[in-house]
Amino acid sequence: MADYQKIAHALQKSEGEPVHIRGWIYRTRSSGKLAFVVVRDESTIIQVVAEKERLPDEEFAGAQKALIESSVDIEGLIHEDERAPGGREIHATSFRVIQFAEDFPITEDHSTEFLLDNRHLWLRSRRLTTIMKIRHTVVGAIHEFFRSRGFYEFHPPILQPSQCEGGATLFEVKYYGDTTYLSQSWQLYAEAAVFALERVYDVAPTFRAERSKTSRHLSEFWMAEMEAAWMELDEATQYAKDEIKFVLRRVLEHHERDLAYLGRDPEILRALLDKEWPTIKYREALEVLAEHGMDVPFGKDLRTLEEEELMRHFDTPVVVTHYPKETMAFYKPRDPQHPDEALCFDMLAPEGYGEIVGGSQRSTDIEELMESLEQQGEDPRNYEWYLDLRRYGSVPHSGYGVGVERLLAWICALDNIKDAIAFPRTVTRKSP
Amino acid sequence: MADYQKIAHALQKSEGEPVHIRGWIYRTRSSGKLAFVVVRDESTIIQVVAEKERLPDEEFAGAQKALIESSVDIEGLIHEDERAPGGREIHATSFRVIQFAEDFPITEDHSTEFLLDNRHLWLRSRRLTTIMKIRHTVVGAIHEFFRSRGFYEFHPPILQPSQCEGGATLFEVKYYGDTTYLSQSWQLYAEAAVFALERVYDVAPTFRAERSKTSRHLSEFWMAEMEAAWMELDEATQYAKDEIKFVLRRVLEHHERDLAYLGRDPEILRALLDKEWPTIKYREALEVLAEHGMDVPFGKDLRTLEEEELMRHFDTPVVVTHYPKETMAFYKPRDPQHPDEALCFDMLAPEGYGEIVGGSQRSTDIEELMESLEQQGEDPRNYEWYLDLRRYGSVPHSGYGVGVERLLAWICALDNIKDAIAFPRTVTRKSP
Repeated sequence: MADYQKIAHALQKSEGEPVHIRGWIYRTRSSGKLAFVVVRDESTIIQVVAEKERLPDEEFAGAQKALIESSVDIEGLIHEDERAPGGREIHATSFRVIQFAEDFPITEDHSTEFLLDNRHLWLRSRRLTTIMKIRHTVVGAIHEFFRSRGFYEFHPPILQPSQCEGGATLFEVKYYGDTTYLSQSWQLYAEAAVFALERVYDVAPTFRAERSKTSRHLSEFWMAEMEAAWMELDEATQYAKDEIKFVLRRVLEHHERDLAYLGRDPEILRALLDKEWPTIKYREALEVLAEHGMDVPFGKDLRTLEEEELMRHFDTPVVVTHYPKETMAFYKPRDPQHPDEALCFDMLAPEGYGEIVGGSQRSTDIEELMESLEQQGEDPRNYEWYLDLRRYGSVPHSGYGVGVERLLAWICALDNIKDAIAFPRTVTRKSP
Repeated sequence: MADYQKIAHALQKSEGEPVHIRGWIYRTRSSGKLAFVVVRDESTIIQVVAEKERLPDEEFAGAQKALIESSVDIEGLIHEDERAPGGREIHATSFRVIQFAEDFPITEDHSTEFLLDNRHLWLRSRRLTTIMKIRHTVVGAIHEFFRSRGFYEFHPPILQPSQCEGGATLFEVKYYGDTTYLSQSWQLYAEAAVFALERVYDVAPTFRAERSKTSRHLSEFWMAEMEAAWMELDEATQYAKDEIKFVLRRVLEHHERDLAYLGRDPEILRALLDKEWPTIKYREALEVLAEHGMDVPFGKDLRTLEEEELMRHFDTPVVVTHYPKETMAFYKPRDPQHPDEALCFDMLAPEGYGEIVGGSQRSTDIEELMESLEQQGEDPRNYEWYLDLRRYGSVPHSGYGVGVERLLAWICALDNIKDAIAFPRTVTRKSP
């Protein structure tokens, strides 16, 4: 197709220079002889002035009548004008409407459900477009972080015959007259991979049938996971801190204005880069809570309320390690020094965003693994292949997963995790 | 954990220099006073000489008795020896067995099914490890190609309420008492995204219930897809050629030896880089076939046999465009000049590898779309949201998908596509 340029590029031209843009009508108003049409493209917006005298009749009529979201192809000359957004507008010499949009259903003050029903159109909103661009940068930074550190991108199967994070949240798939399940985590398969590739990562869709309707749960979400041979708990927690800082740095490099547009002060994130992010044990977290009147007995998981109270005492993300073994997934090993604790960790984000990373060293003790599986009502025979990994050259290894949407929700200071993914899937929503 | 180095790094040291490696026993033989233990890690292999006189008794005993795939941590001094693989061996000063492996079940001459049953162990084979490394490079090159050209990485939903490539190959998922399906393609959702981000790509798992047991079909595979606003068929085919050439270039940069190890002559791939890859119409392909005694009537899809005959006349990948509209997915538009042809394309790989890319311009004609949906037995009301994309600012747009495993199978000259993915899923296999 003929050459055209991004609006952001057109906005760098000087008075009188010719430009050619394509996009969609963002706002429009007209009088008898003039139409002021603000056009958006992927990059930004610009005002186009269509004058009856300068355009063929049919084109001027089109500029007057085209409704918002109509697609347009416009040529014209740059006019510098301080009042215009971006300090420039285009005086059209050609105004072609590619498609005259029907009345756009989304105007103002719609309910959340209406916007979710029309997600395919609401995606075009500046808000969602901005979030999706930051998501692109977050995921790109994760690829860059691991690839530059010698990790291999490794794709696990999404269809898995058994559970990894509890049978209750499995989604069942009909598989040629048989049954299989959707991945809750790549972990068991990544553990197999480290005996070949040693250090692996992925960014992949993950599925958990979470019946809770909270602002933090999705049924389908993306996880960025890593798994590394010869790595113990301490090093894994350090990797997680380094990774999240690396992501923040890339986001701040590319999206300072976008963050501000979303109402997130970039300085709050920037201040985290040079600070040490503490690591505390779950037992220490209980002490902090007890000092502030919250008595949580050892063995109970921290609820949102308690995580929020804990995080009031920190101004950075915090890594909490050594949660009670009994409440943990079967693959998390006992700490030999404190057998009631597991060699595991969560990273909690500040500002009430909760867990953004979860990980652990992996148990290499077949007896312990079989016992934990049985306690969870699983038949260890279904995990024979996994137990093989402990029979043939077992090595200490660790891994963790970053919830992409949770990380993004925190970075962008979103109210609801649903805005961190293009087409959210929850207990009450499976379309469009 | 204490510092250690990759074997590839140790192999660059000189006579007498100290090294510290970790890995798994690849081969082993011993006499009374000496054990020759070849150790593998992710990078390569090296021979370790364990001498009774230089090691504590327990360590020498361990070196003698450890079976293959035992995990080891070894310190020693480099000895240059032309007979050794890599021209170096290690004379051990410390030989610690981390875990004594049981008798490794995989030896030689196993059936394909046995190796698939033990895929979690067979992944460690040099063959599969090599393929997975090339896969890492292929996928990385795809990310690099699109990101450097201003495309946004966009994640579509994997759980989708309707079909995109024919209802017959849908996998059904139980969804909170309701039903939904696994993605056959990101396409419909990517089409929604281009109105916001204009140019998007992804690399994501894709599912088709393919009952055919061929060497070219998987039930779960990964597709690298792109979708671009303001792009027509010609430009899309050019993008596909550029992308595949870019991937080949990166693979040749990093994996010349790996390809040779797999039995693929890298020069065959290199020769493709400077050639033009032809684009022909389906009708022209039929003529080529007719000249060689294969009469295919217009309207029939090309079968493997016919694709293979066609490709005998080319020494590069070939793009075939304008397949008959009637056999195509509903979203492929008629060519206005030739209404029985669709504005679509496949890229066929040489050497019998068949289709590696499939794409098209997308129909923007609501009537045509509804008619095609009805012809395929679909209720257009289930696609209202998709049709909305033609009502509100429709623009010409195109996209295509690269089958990651098919591309990899061709690049590595694999006999079977199952070796192009870590844990293959087919009509007869859902585990491990």
